[in-house]
Parts: sequence; structure tokens; C-alpha cells
Amino acid sequence: MPVNEGAELVEVLRGGAVESVHRGHVAVWGPGGMIAGWGDPEAVIFPRSSCKMIQALPLIESGAADAARLTPEHLALACASHQGARIHTDRVTDWLDDLGLTDSDFRCGPQTPADKPARNALIRAHAAPCQVHNNCSGKHAGFLTLNRQLGGDADYVEIDHPVQRAVRAATEEVCEAESPYYGIDGCSAPNFAMRLDALAMAMAGFASAEGRSGARAAAQVRLVQAMMAHPELVAGVTRACTELMRAMPGRAAIKTGAEGVFFGILPERQVGFALKITDGTTRAAESVAAALLVALGVLEAEHPLAKKRLDPVLKNWRGIEVGAIRPVEALRASL
Amino acid sequence: MPVNEGAELVEVLRGGAVESVHRGHVAVWGPGGMIAGWGDPEAVIFPRSSCKMIQALPLIESGAADAARLTPEHLALACASHQGARIHTDRVTDWLDDLGLTDSDFRCGPQTPADKPARNALIRAHAAPCQVHNNCSGKHAGFLTLNRQLGGDADYVEIDHPVQRAVRAATEEVCEAESPYYGIDGCSAPNFAMRLDALAMAMAGFASAEGRSGARAAAQVRLVQAMMAHPELVAGVTRACTELMRAMPGRAAIKTGAEGVFFGILPERQVGFALKITDGTTRAAESVAAALLVALGVLEAEHPLAKKRLDPVLKNWRGIEVGAIRPVEALRASL
Repeated sequence: MPVNEGAELVEVLRGGAVESVHRGHVAVWGPGGMIAGWGDPEAVIFPRSSCKMIQALPLIESGAADAARLTPEHLALACASHQGARIHTDRVTDWLDDLGLTDSDFRCGPQTPADKPARNALIRAHAAPCQVHNNCSGKHAGFLTLNRQLGGDADYVEIDHPVQRAVRAATEEVCEAESPYYGIDGCSAPNFAMRLDALAMAMAGFASAEGRSGARAAAQVRLVQAMMAHPELVAGVTRACTELMRAMPGRAAIKTGAEGVFFGILPERQVGFALKITDGTTRAAESVAAALLVALGVLEAEHPLAKKRLDPVLKNWRGIEVGAIRPVEALRASL
Repeated sequence: MPVNEGAELVEVLRGGAVESVHRGHVAVWGPGGMIAGWGDPEAVIFPRSSCKMIQALPLIESGAADAARLTPEHLALACASHQGARIHTDRVTDWLDDLGLTDSDFRCGPQTPADKPARNALIRAHAAPCQVHNNCSGKHAGFLTLNRQLGGDADYVEIDHPVQRAVRAATEEVCEAESPYYGIDGCSAPNFAMRLDALAMAMAGFASAEGRSGARAAAQVRLVQAMMAHPELVAGVTRACTELMRAMPGRAAIKTGAEGVFFGILPERQVGFALKITDGTTRAAESVAAALLVALGVLEAEHPLAKKRLDPVLKNWRGIEVGAIRPVEALRASL
């Protein structure tokens, strides 16, 4: 079943009245199976950038990460949708340099950085963005590192390339299901469609990896620890992933994706969640993710960085409060 | 009834599979009443910027527009959500100057222009945007012009100010209904909630104004003619309102609004429409508006500027085609 209407999850208010609504699907998975769901947890979705920690598994499991002496900072960038700030692009440029490669070896495409200082510096220099500014350049540096180990050709985003075959295998293994189809992501890499509940189960697998042995579990632990240790590298200051991880240090690794996707990994609960807003809206995905993290007991609802996503106040161009975004009541009960 | 789920109106595809969906409400009104509807045409919505031609009625009917010698360009700007390009801000600045007022007399708030050359010029000059850059500055110049006629105080966006009382009266008259509540818009002006079908009927009233006599009809004709004569002032190059009006010159006046609202006025059919995407997404509102204009026979589906909104191709950062946006089949039958 592809994406369908789903359950009402978020209301957008203006002057106290509902102006817009967001619907979606949620699956929360624990040690004993699914512990909560809204909408259709069996809906097949494109996980988009929320699955970058899955896409990074072959980088570690192949031995490529250790051969290239990657640090937790590199691993956090491999799982990142970053803003293209200097803290991101400087590190990714150094990483490329260590590999003996250049910006033209990327296949992610150039993207204007979301980080305002970086964007303004380009505009003032009358310069065009490079591929390193692409929000996925850390993931692609990981792909290039893996490719050196696997000996594939330069077109590492092709569906039959050894890098993407390894990514597909890892995805299907952690989800315990075949991907029924794929699409091409914004960064040109294949993105493998999967049932939402299988993705939530995969996130629970990352969350419970410390209790398991083997190369897969060890890789999962390293990626989760890297994301939690470097929230500023996973997204950027002012972004939801970074701010929410800073509000609950060491308690969860979370990752946004385009078109209203959000995943969470909660090691202390051995719980994972996956959600998809059916209209693809980020403001709703962030609000539902914050509500789930509060409901699961790892995020304090009153923390200022939590309130900013959970119950954001909408202000207008004069700074006047005109409305609010609210997850529905059903998302506020403890899980 | 406030906004609820509505009917499925638009699909967003990736790799041939549905990735996201948009739902909403549509009302199409003709000389004999409602001629088509989807979702709940009785839903109460905030019309946001789509109702600027209603908000501009008192400017003309009061005699203020003629007293200030406003041209069709001024009237198009009064109905505009412009991009803050030089063609907009130069004209609004001159208008303010003609009134003997300055940027600080505005109450719309400063907004970074969406027009890239204007935005980049500000960034290179290390300058902050002014209120004249606000997409609603033309509407506010109209409010200030009306205020000079009415003799109100400086806070012309207050709910009980003579300017806003006149706007409310015009809104309720053309919709033949009381507004049940209001919210504060992005530009700080009140925005009066109204049933969607009443708003579609109001747009049909603008569309059929040439056949009626009286001050109201004359004002409606002037505003519709001004919008159709100056599509570049109503929004800006690359924007849907401008491009679609250029693709069907003289055949319709159309206007987008925040949170997924879109209105259309078709004088040759004496038809008006109003639509609301319940999740507030502009890409879907534009696609449905283009489909309705084709279905109503005023827009050629094969015109490049029509195809761009009706069936847009989604490309990624490397320019590779990765998906598409499609109005549902039900929106493609002739009306």
C-alpha cells in the first residue's frame, strides 16, 4: 500500500482557529514488537534522508571506515543532512582530501547552503555553490570511502554499483524485508522504499545494538554514538535534529528526511520510531517527532529547544504571535 | 466547520510511486450557483492573501484611489503578493512618496525579498530589508491611501480601525455572510474567516461585474482589469500567479494565498473559484489552480507556463528528473 491519507496528527492554528491540518503514519517499535501506531504503519514510504544511518552500515562493516581512519565526526557527517556551514564543509573537504579526491568526484550535485553565513559568503563572493555544500555531501564522502574499499567505478550512485548494492542489502537485512521499489533521491542516490513498521523495527535494532554481538551490532552502536556525540554535525545550529539531540544529550539519535519523514533511535528504551507526514511537510514531522520523544520519556516537554518544535508559536513579520502548531492530544500520552 | 481532511487532489510521485498526497476543498461558482466542488465547499477558511482584491474594494469605492490618482499599476500592486523586486519596491516607494509618507508608516513589517537579485543586493550591501520589501507592501500602500480618505489614526491594521472596518464590511457584503472569526495575517492585517463557497461566489461576482451597474461593480471591474493588465506586479517573474496570467492573457485574474489558498476570476465565463489545500502547501494549490483553469477552458494545458504548474517535473540537485506532481484525474474533466 503506498502512502494514503493517514491519521490527523498536527493542527496549525491562527487566531485560535484551525487553519491547516497534517495527517500521517507513525510506527513505534520496542523489544517486544510494535508498541504504538497511528494511521497505517504498514504504508510503504521512501525513507529519504532519515535512513542515512542504514546507508552508512556498509561503510563500517566493509572495513572501509577503519582503513580510512574515520572518526566519530566523520561517521556523524555520513549520517547527516547538514546545512553546508563551515563546520560541515571544512570537514568534508578535508575528508575528500584524505581520500585523494576532489569535489568533482561527488555525484550529489551543487546545492546552495541553508546556513545563512555560508550562503551570504557565496553571494558576496559572486560564487556558485559546490557539491560539498550539498546537505548529503557527508553521506557521499562515506560512499566514496566505501567505494575505494570495494573497487567500484566512479559512478557510485548507479543502482547496480557495488556501493548501492551494499546499501540495498543492508537496508533489506535490517528491515527484514525486500524493498518493493526505489526512487532517485535529491542527491542522486537510490532511495529504497520500505514499509514504515519495518523501518521502525530497524530503528529499534539500532537502539538495542549494545546488547548484541557481531559486526552489524558494533557498526550500529558506532553510528548511534557518533550521531549523539556530534548533533551539530548531523544537521546544524537552528535545525530540529541538532536542537532536539542537544535537549536530550545521549538519550536518542534522531534524523529528519525530506517529504515529512522522521526516524528516532532510543537506546535506553531499546525503542525505534519512524513517521511519515503524508503531505510531506517538515513542520509537522518535527512536531510529531518531538511529541513522540516526550511521550517516550527522553525529552523534557518544558525544555526550550523541545517547546520550539513540539508547540511552536507562529509569529509574523512584525514579531506578533499569530498562531501555533500543535500535535493532536492522542500523541501526548506516555508510551 | 473549520478545515478538515478534504478530498485527495494532488499526488507527488517519485520513481513512478506515490510519495506524498495533498487533500483539500474546492468550490467553483458560476452564474447559476455552484458548478463543481471537491472536499467540503462549506469549510471555513482563512482566505489569506487570495482575498486582496476584496480588501482593495474600499480603496476605490471610498473615492480614495481617484483622489490619489492611482493608476492600474497601483491597483495591481494593492492586490499583489509581490516578490520585493525593484519593479515592485520602486513603485511602492514612489506611491508612499506621493502620499507624503515613509517606510516607517507601514505596519506590515520587514521581509527579506523572495526576488533573488533584490535579496542578493541587500546581502552584498550588508543591509536589512525594509517594510517596502514585504510582499504585502502594495496592499498596505492601498490601506494608507484609504486611511488618508477616512481620517483614521496611524494604526491602520487594528481590528476596529476605520480601514479594517471597511474591509470587513466589503468582505461580508461580497460573500453575503458574516465572518465567524478572524486571525492576524503575516502582514499584521486582520484576515476574516469565511466559508469557501461564499468566497467562490464572491469571485464569481468579480467575474460578472461588467454586466452590472453601480460603484461596487465598477470597482470590481477596475481591479480585475488591473490584475490582468499587470501580472508581473501581482507576484513576480517565476511566480505562479504571474506566469499563469501571462499564459492566458486577459482571460482570468488569479491570486495565491499562504497556507494553500488560491482564488480565480474568469470574466468570460462569469465564473469564480476558491480552493484550500488542507495541509497548507503551495505546490498543491498551484497545481489544482492550473487544473481548474484548464478545465474551465481559459488555459491551454500544453502552454509551457501551464505545464510547469499543472504537471511539474521534479528534478534533483544534478538536474535529473526524479518525480512529478499530478492533480488527480477527477480535476481534469471539462467544467
